[in-house]
Amino acid sequence: MKDLMAHALRVQNRQLSILNQQKLPQEEEWIKCLSPDHMCEMIRSLQVRGAPLIGIAAAIALAQYATCGALPHEIKKAAAALRAARPTAVNLMHCIDRQMLSFEKLADVQNLVAIAEELFFEDVQLCEKIAFHGNTLLTDGDHILTHCNTGALVTVGCGTALGIIFHAHKQEKQLHVYVDETRPLLQGGRLTTWELNRWNIPYTLICDNMAATLMRAGKIQKIIVGADRIAQNGDFANKIGTYNLAVLAHYHQIPFYVAAPYTTIDLHCVSGEDIVVEERSADEVRGFVNNLGTTVWSVSNSPVFNPAFDVTPAHLVTAFILDRGIYKPSEFFENIQRSKNPNNGFILNNS
Amino acid sequence: MKDLMAHALRVQNRQLSILNQQKLPQEEEWIKCLSPDHMCEMIRSLQVRGAPLIGIAAAIALAQYATCGALPHEIKKAAAALRAARPTAVNLMHCIDRQMLSFEKLADVQNLVAIAEELFFEDVQLCEKIAFHGNTLLTDGDHILTHCNTGALVTVGCGTALGIIFHAHKQEKQLHVYVDETRPLLQGGRLTTWELNRWNIPYTLICDNMAATLMRAGKIQKIIVGADRIAQNGDFANKIGTYNLAVLAHYHQIPFYVAAPYTTIDLHCVSGEDIVVEERSADEVRGFVNNLGTTVWSVSNSPVFNPAFDVTPAHLVTAFILDRGIYKPSEFFENIQRSKNPNNGFILNNS
Repeated sequence: MKDLMAHALRVQNRQLSILNQQKLPQEEEWIKCLSPDHMCEMIRSLQVRGAPLIGIAAAIALAQYATCGALPHEIKKAAAALRAARPTAVNLMHCIDRQMLSFEKLADVQNLVAIAEELFFEDVQLCEKIAFHGNTLLTDGDHILTHCNTGALVTVGCGTALGIIFHAHKQEKQLHVYVDETRPLLQGGRLTTWELNRWNIPYTLICDNMAATLMRAGKIQKIIVGADRIAQNGDFANKIGTYNLAVLAHYHQIPFYVAAPYTTIDLHCVSGEDIVVEERSADEVRGFVNNLGTTVWSVSNSPVFNPAFDVTPAHLVTAFILDRGIYKPSEFFENIQRSKNPNNGFILNNS
Repeated sequence: MKDLMAHALRVQNRQLSILNQQKLPQEEEWIKCLSPDHMCEMIRSLQVRGAPLIGIAAAIALAQYATCGALPHEIKKAAAALRAARPTAVNLMHCIDRQMLSFEKLADVQNLVAIAEELFFEDVQLCEKIAFHGNTLLTDGDHILTHCNTGALVTVGCGTALGIIFHAHKQEKQLHVYVDETRPLLQGGRLTTWELNRWNIPYTLICDNMAATLMRAGKIQKIIVGADRIAQNGDFANKIGTYNLAVLAHYHQIPFYVAAPYTTIDLHCVSGEDIVVEERSADEVRGFVNNLGTTVWSVSNSPVFNPAFDVTPAHLVTAFILDRGIYKPSEFFENIQRSKNPNNGFILNNS
């Protein structure tokens, strides 16, 4: 396997290492991935996170495992485990399926490696294209609200929603970013602030419940979020709290954009109703969980609701910023419909 | 001074003690109030919190100080300091003003004590009346969302928004309460869960950004919040995150109620635009602050926006549940207008 370098993933001398995102921003620790099981564990514990990054990391882990002499039935078992490590992340399934479809046909271990490398370089390109299109929507002086973390930590390129902001900043647009801390796992407070700080982009950290008052005060011109899964009709799943922002944006008439690569679209998903949302550990809401352990500030046995994601209906989206271009929800739907015709390349054919 | 007993405040043998709300739910620590300055410090550090409780605690502290031999100019200085300890809490100003208006006239220390006692028993009555009226709006089987903490910890009676729920529960209505954790200070996660747990009322703790997805799923029938200050026109200030809920309630067509005693109404405030919102320490948003110290999970110098309150416009309120009865925003405004006629007792005359 080639050497590969990204902000949160590296392959050097055939060894895959992952930046432990659980320890950011306090510490930059790189973890060597030992096996597909280890990768599953890193995905579940959010040491590696973000839909595109998860998919590529899993594909590289599978390729490594295969090149170390795993037998075909072991490769299949590992693929199934990796595929299931994060049920909402459709990219993960796409990546593993692409490898395994080829492996079923060719039974060629080197081809698993080649596909993992392809996925890596494709992702860099996808991010560049999303950033290029998204940049056309941003104006000098914009104050932009974002949720969760969607930058160079969740992809192997510049990111999705945050990638657009990085790109516009490089073009010397003067932007200010409002960062939702994103309870319960605080990806905004921990990771987006870390990325913006490194890039020297002006930002303000807020608690999730403060966004509404900023919107009312006219302090937010645009909202850009990522997506974990987009259904055929444009309904999409993203980090819990996204739907909240979409309703607030609608009420305050603020443009609400969703930035994602085409790989986030799940053609098996007709609408948001088909998206199964994982529930996570109660301790994350009873207090907070980080690399140092669990802090509980609530009554210790408090019953908790802790969905990892929420689903936002397409009609609340101003536009989808995809690598293919910018689409209104209605156009998005049309394009998806067309993609069902095998002669039309949108979505399914990665041209 | 008489002995007085409430859930979070006691006077025994003329000694005022306060339940340290910063240490709940882990520890029940009672602090003896040593002076008006000490009370100011307890108000600022949120050891004593909740608009009605703050007012009464401050009035008792002032009365105690006076009975211990403070000179008139010292009493006036202490009154001014207490009055300013929490700028948004209009009850605090009401209580101190009522004492000092009398003191200016009579220069009678015992009268300061009598007024503090009156304020205590009036508050118990106000809570009972709010609970009585509010209960008429609740139906068996209701799932109710609430924000921050508005129970027996913020008043010397049963509370405001949460007091209604306690009252309905005592009437054997089957209710389920969804509790917003209420970042950044986590009054919902720390205190409302503690109160509901003690009362054995079924509840579920959520992060603030999860309320929208529950509303969309039809899991919330009513929202009840408290208020820190209500303007003449019905705009009101309450804990940050309240306006967010009001917009969500409007979008999902869920009744949104504001429960408060008449003392929360500020006749000097024409509309929400006149309400000054305090900003609090950045460290509360960069991580969390509790009795054990400050935990920072963000980049340590992250710029932060941390308003203590937000302002919700009256038109988003379904009804105000006051001790005087239940008022729609339009009726509320009419009543306030009438109260400007000195022959009409609403609001100004505590009959």
